[in-house]
Amino acid sequence: MSRWYAVYALETGLIREGDDVAEKVVAAAEAAACGGIRDGDILLLAESAVATAEGRTVRLDEVVPSDEARRLAERYAIDPAITEVVLRESDRVVGGIPGFLLTLKNGTLLPNAGADHSNAPDGTVVPLPRDPDASAGRVRAAVRARLGVNTGVLVIDSRTHAMRLGCSGVAIGCAGLSAVVDESGRRDLFGRELEVTKRAVGDCLASAAELLMGEADECVPAVLVRGTGIELNEEYGIPTIDASECLFMGAALHADPAAFDGEGKPE
Amino acid sequence: MSRWYAVYALETGLIREGDDVAEKVVAAAEAAACGGIRDGDILLLAESAVATAEGRTVRLDEVVPSDEARRLAERYAIDPAITEVVLRESDRVVGGIPGFLLTLKNGTLLPNAGADHSNAPDGTVVPLPRDPDASAGRVRAAVRARLGVNTGVLVIDSRTHAMRLGCSGVAIGCAGLSAVVDESGRRDLFGRELEVTKRAVGDCLASAAELLMGEADECVPAVLVRGTGIELNEEYGIPTIDASECLFMGAALHADPAAFDGEGKPE
Repeated sequence: MSRWYAVYALETGLIREGDDVAEKVVAAAEAAACGGIRDGDILLLAESAVATAEGRTVRLDEVVPSDEARRLAERYAIDPAITEVVLRESDRVVGGIPGFLLTLKNGTLLPNAGADHSNAPDGTVVPLPRDPDASAGRVRAAVRARLGVNTGVLVIDSRTHAMRLGCSGVAIGCAGLSAVVDESGRRDLFGRELEVTKRAVGDCLASAAELLMGEADECVPAVLVRGTGIELNEEYGIPTIDASECLFMGAALHADPAAFDGEGKPE
Repeated sequence: MSRWYAVYALETGLIREGDDVAEKVVAAAEAAACGGIRDGDILLLAESAVATAEGRTVRLDEVVPSDEARRLAERYAIDPAITEVVLRESDRVVGGIPGFLLTLKNGTLLPNAGADHSNAPDGTVVPLPRDPDASAGRVRAAVRARLGVNTGVLVIDSRTHAMRLGCSGVAIGCAGLSAVVDESGRRDLFGRELEVTKRAVGDCLASAAELLMGEADECVPAVLVRGTGIELNEEYGIPTIDASECLFMGAALHADPAAFDGEGKPE
């Protein structure tokens, strides 16, 4: 494993519909302290910038909410047009709290199916890129075509996690590295086989990038990570977990909600 | 915000009961590429190393399982002695899946209350440090006393998240920085007030550190982060979220479990 690594903000300026993300990232990297993109570097791209460049922006005044959208909008106090976009973008709505629907999309849980109107023009929302792995693959191919260098590319989002306050990074699209590394058969400090053997390398990289991207007007939609020693490969996509194998879902979904308030008794 | 930052592995060698963690970290930092600890650096310590040094290791052959422990051990196929330790260590057990109990401890959800027997000697488990914030505070004070430098210190763990495959980092103890940064009032790229305003800076730093720590025999129980621009302060502890305000718990706990299998219909 590497002894140290560095994380560089790539200041591309505002990304607009139709922009060539790879071109902007290459230029920003030239201007950054990393002095350009090198073989083995990992590029992390904010999903909102990728989706905007890909023309995913939806004008809410052009959205006609369905009855189902109106019902959920009323129930969870969400704008009906936004709710309609969320329904279109999600594989399934599993619940909600005021202001947010909890949705399943591409095998992961996320609020409002990722249809975000932070960092989107007024009266619009920007859903996630249609195929974040393909987006990552396109940028990786474009950077290789331009510079002849082999990189890993992640499309990342900023999300909360169960019973954690505040957002951290998650990888939603991947090309050129293993987003989840399986260490089965590796041994711990005492030579025992590891129990928990899967490392969410993509999510760890995403969180490292979030520290420079921020959520606000920093205009840092891309980050370059150099020196982790993470091996690049031709892997593509992000392995997911079944709800039945997920400790949180497997247990929490069947737990007594009272167990989470002051009144609950052990399971 | 900073333009780039660096993350350094601190190779302390194996941490044993009674070891002075601060002393080992200071020495490892001197030998590392960072050339020692400087003002503004953030130190991240693996909870297992901290707990081991603090003498938290429990010999399983000395643990007498209660009836409740035996019942849960049977139900979830967990060693009864480990189950007893988990019961003692957790504030509440909310459920489980084979091999793991899902527990609430210090306001967060975690498997087996963090009682870990990876990286623990055979026949033992190492629960979390008794008071991770205090552990962080002690190391911070000891580093300041030794070197006269102001650092932030996080005690971190490696955990899975709901519907994410693989482990990433979470901060469980904090001294000298804000583990969660509230950006209320800040504006997005289009001048709109941010909707999601809390950033889990502690968790993002923990994940950045996980990339160097690994879960196996790397013997990197500490990491130094330099250059993030994160402002150090006298904050202490990690803000938590109520289940009722947590989208995952608020929604998932009341969701129809069928919504997560192929059969479920929208909420």
